[in-house]
Amino acid sequence: MRARRIVILTEGHSNPHTAKTACSVLRYRTDEVEALLDSTHAGETTGQVLHVGGETPIVGSLDDVRSADTLLIGIAPPGGKIPTSWRSIVLQAIARGMDVVSGLHDYVSADAEFTAAARRYQVELVDLRKNSDRDIALHPSLRTGCVRVLTVGHDCSVGKMVTSLEVTRELQRRRIDAKFLATGQTGMLLTDAGCPVDSVVADFVSGSVERLIVEHQQHDVLILEGQGSLVHPSYSGVTLSLLHGSVPHGLILCYEVGRTTVTGISHLKIPPLAQIKDLNEKMANAIAPCRVIAISMNSRRVNATEAAIERQRREEEFGVPVSDVFRDGPSRLADAVLKLRDRLLGDQIRGTGDE
Amino acid sequence: MRARRIVILTEGHSNPHTAKTACSVLRYRTDEVEALLDSTHAGETTGQVLHVGGETPIVGSLDDVRSADTLLIGIAPPGGKIPTSWRSIVLQAIARGMDVVSGLHDYVSADAEFTAAARRYQVELVDLRKNSDRDIALHPSLRTGCVRVLTVGHDCSVGKMVTSLEVTRELQRRRIDAKFLATGQTGMLLTDAGCPVDSVVADFVSGSVERLIVEHQQHDVLILEGQGSLVHPSYSGVTLSLLHGSVPHGLILCYEVGRTTVTGISHLKIPPLAQIKDLNEKMANAIAPCRVIAISMNSRRVNATEAAIERQRREEEFGVPVSDVFRDGPSRLADAVLKLRDRLLGDQIRGTGDE
Repeated sequence: MRARRIVILTEGHSNPHTAKTACSVLRYRTDEVEALLDSTHAGETTGQVLHVGGETPIVGSLDDVRSADTLLIGIAPPGGKIPTSWRSIVLQAIARGMDVVSGLHDYVSADAEFTAAARRYQVELVDLRKNSDRDIALHPSLRTGCVRVLTVGHDCSVGKMVTSLEVTRELQRRRIDAKFLATGQTGMLLTDAGCPVDSVVADFVSGSVERLIVEHQQHDVLILEGQGSLVHPSYSGVTLSLLHGSVPHGLILCYEVGRTTVTGISHLKIPPLAQIKDLNEKMANAIAPCRVIAISMNSRRVNATEAAIERQRREEEFGVPVSDVFRDGPSRLADAVLKLRDRLLGDQIRGTGDE
Repeated sequence: MRARRIVILTEGHSNPHTAKTACSVLRYRTDEVEALLDSTHAGETTGQVLHVGGETPIVGSLDDVRSADTLLIGIAPPGGKIPTSWRSIVLQAIARGMDVVSGLHDYVSADAEFTAAARRYQVELVDLRKNSDRDIALHPSLRTGCVRVLTVGHDCSVGKMVTSLEVTRELQRRRIDAKFLATGQTGMLLTDAGCPVDSVVADFVSGSVERLIVEHQQHDVLILEGQGSLVHPSYSGVTLSLLHGSVPHGLILCYEVGRTTVTGISHLKIPPLAQIKDLNEKMANAIAPCRVIAISMNSRRVNATEAAIERQRREEEFGVPVSDVFRDGPSRLADAVLKLRDRLLGDQIRGTGDE
């Protein structure tokens, strides 16, 4: 997406979990964000309220950010509907000549009132999730020499996108030809390559992922953003389509320390991490060889000492590197990707590879 | 769907695998089918060409079946597009005042030429796959006393729908309050309860299945039609959404004797049946207790002696009843459902149930 001057709308929903989209844009497109719009926190900063974006101001009205040219819907609620009370704010923004960018399932460009206003004020309505993907996965031969890594998790919203981005950036810093591939609306705000997989018609999800891989396999390493979890009843189908559509060589398993129940289904327990790892490896290996190469630990709920103990415990349990990409940096996860690449190249040279 | 006088269109595609929809309608709505339309087999019967429907004639032109009021698209190709050469036949049918019923992904009701013609001749265009489902699965408590059984398979097109229908009918013959729930376009032609799961936007597939279950759980037994397979890269996401959306107590595992490679992906081997069983049970049990209660063997490619040997071998391997619903009838599979019901009722009485 071209550079914009963005107001992020999170009115009444400015907490790190609900405003996941807002947080990521604040983190990774910081310079383009003029303000966050939430009258319940007007006068504060995003750093204070969302712990990201530093001094970026929170305003109570569009009147306070006349320089902005884009209103970005900053939440992604389950079901993806726009809160009714937000409609008037969206219409105000359109009347000011601002484009509206949305990652909701309910397309702003399919809303009669919004489209009429957009025509009148000649602004653009951008739906990140809109697609007409109709590719059936055919499991083609993929380029030997392109290493595919997918992030998976024990639940949704544990840090799969952030892990994927941070590992890609670390590899790029080391001058590896690595590419981040987005699979959700927020990731798509942050890169030029992606597919909104959860919004594709079910029969075509793995096909759309496969096409994304095929289109970018000239790179040496592809780091694919995962979605949901194999044990989240609402999203497990999307997760499996990603696993089978991308045919990864390696998985980075993401989890949050202290998370015990499935997001949105509080009466359902998340199975132990060892079981999550086993299910992902079993489901992947039914199609092609694949293993968990590293673990990305989201330790935001615990202090540094607790995080260090947890990290060591998990490394002993699983025998792979464990890191919190914010606390520890992505270095050891990137090492694991390069180790995987070396192993695959070695297999090729020895003729023991599987491709 | 109301009673109709149907011509099934399979022009150039009259073989049992491609014309799956045609075969099922011939089998289960026999009395409503006037003819099959395929000029390459004109003069033959469906019994001769498709091994179903007995003396139902195959005609070369709509002129030969003037009594028909409905044209049914009789194939469901991967990707779901209508063959270009069929367009003129569809337009002819509309011009004769026939409704058009289609299970394709490409909606006939979204085709400008078809809709213009339908308006002109005042006929109905029915798209079985069309839906606007937007339910997120919430994993609610379900009614104790309603037993849920899902058919799963080692590949697509092995007989999951037929198995589900035959077992339901057998249970109904025994005066059990059993209900068949369709999840595909063909199944939906044959019953009043269903959801075209592979055509739902990915995030909402398990939610649409969950809603289907909730809407029909007043019945004592629900037999849910499965789709695809957990190891078919094109459809595994849909399969898992079904498994996690329906939270089945029991699975009937369907397979075809002699099938070794994944349909549509001939370079990919199907894993052994024991692995398929294990993957399905593991993925189901990550959410709720569930086991394979019987095996439905599709033995169309082998003779009776070979089928009997295979049946015995599989019963010894898995310790559950194995039957071909056509060769052996659905009786033993229905027995397995009732045994499951008795076990669940017993668990409830003893207070060891899981719901």
